[in-house]
Amino acid sequence: MFTPRPIGFLKTPYTGTKAIPKGLGARHDAEGVVEVLAEFEAGLTDVDGFSHLFLIWVFDRSQGFDLIGTPPCDDRAHGVFATRSPRRPNPIGLTVVELLRREGRFLHVRGVDMLDGTPVLDIKPYLSSVPENTLRRGWLSEVEQRKPRS
Amino acid sequence: MFTPRPIGFLKTPYTGTKAIPKGLGARHDAEGVVEVLAEFEAGLTDVDGFSHLFLIWVFDRSQGFDLIGTPPCDDRAHGVFATRSPRRPNPIGLTVVELLRREGRFLHVRGVDMLDGTPVLDIKPYLSSVPENTLRRGWLSEVEQRKPRS
Repeated sequence: MFTPRPIGFLKTPYTGTKAIPKGLGARHDAEGVVEVLAEFEAGLTDVDGFSHLFLIWVFDRSQGFDLIGTPPCDDRAHGVFATRSPRRPNPIGLTVVELLRREGRFLHVRGVDMLDGTPVLDIKPYLSSVPENTLRRGWLSEVEQRKPRS
Repeated sequence: MFTPRPIGFLKTPYTGTKAIPKGLGARHDAEGVVEVLAEFEAGLTDVDGFSHLFLIWVFDRSQGFDLIGTPPCDDRAHGVFATRSPRRPNPIGLTVVELLRREGRFLHVRGVDMLDGTPVLDIKPYLSSVPENTLRRGWLSEVEQRKPRS
C-alpha cells in the first residue's frame, strides 16, 4: 500500500458538517479553492484546459466506520458502499468540481461539498460522462419517488 | 491522515500494463470482478440498485511519481494532475464501472482498466453525470483533433 500525503488543502465555506447541503436535491454550487502545495505545482501543468476535475480527498475529521448506516435523506439503512457516508473503511471523499480558473497553484472551483481545510490527495481530469439515460440510482431513486424534489 | 487498507481485490484480464488499452479511443469494456473481503460484505447492501459505481483503488505496482510526464497518446508532456498516469504523489486510481451483477461479496463489473490483483480502497455509487456538452477536455481534445479516433 502507500502512505497518503496531502498534495494540497481545500478552502471551502463549510466550517461544520451541518452547513454542507446533503440529501435529495442538494445543490452543490458552493465555490472553493484548491490550494496545491508549492512542491506539487508543476503537476498542474495543462490542468486549465479541463472544465471539470475529480478531487480525491480525506474525511480527516471522521473517525471509524459503519458498514450499514442511515443517510440523512432516507429512513432506511444502506450499505456504506451504496452511500457517500464519511464513515468509511478508508475515509476517502470524491467530488466532481467545475474548474472556474487557475491562478498559479490555486484552483478556483465550483461544487465543493467538504469541510474547510480538507486535505486533498489527488486531482484527476474528468474525461467523459455516463449517459444520464443509462444510469440507475437504486435506493436514491426510490426515495425521490416518495419525496419529490423541492 | 489514515492508513489505507484493502476492502477487496480486483480480478481483471490484465496481468501486465502493456495489455491495458490506453490513449485515444481506448475502449474499456473488459469485464472483471471486485472481490470484497468477507469482513466488509455488509457494506454492499443495496449496491445492486446502482447501474454504475466508482472504484477507488491503488496503483500497487507503481513506484514513485513524476510531476510532468508524456502520456502514451501524445508527444507533449503534461502535469500529472491533468493525466491518468499511475506515477502520482498518491498512487490512487479511479475507474467508473458498470455493475453487471452482484453475487454475495463478488461484484461483476464492466469497464476495468487496472491490473489483476489490484487492491480496492473504496466503492461509491455513481449518482449523476456532467452533461457532455459542458465538458472541455483540454490537451486531450487537441490530440484528438490532430489524430482522429479510429
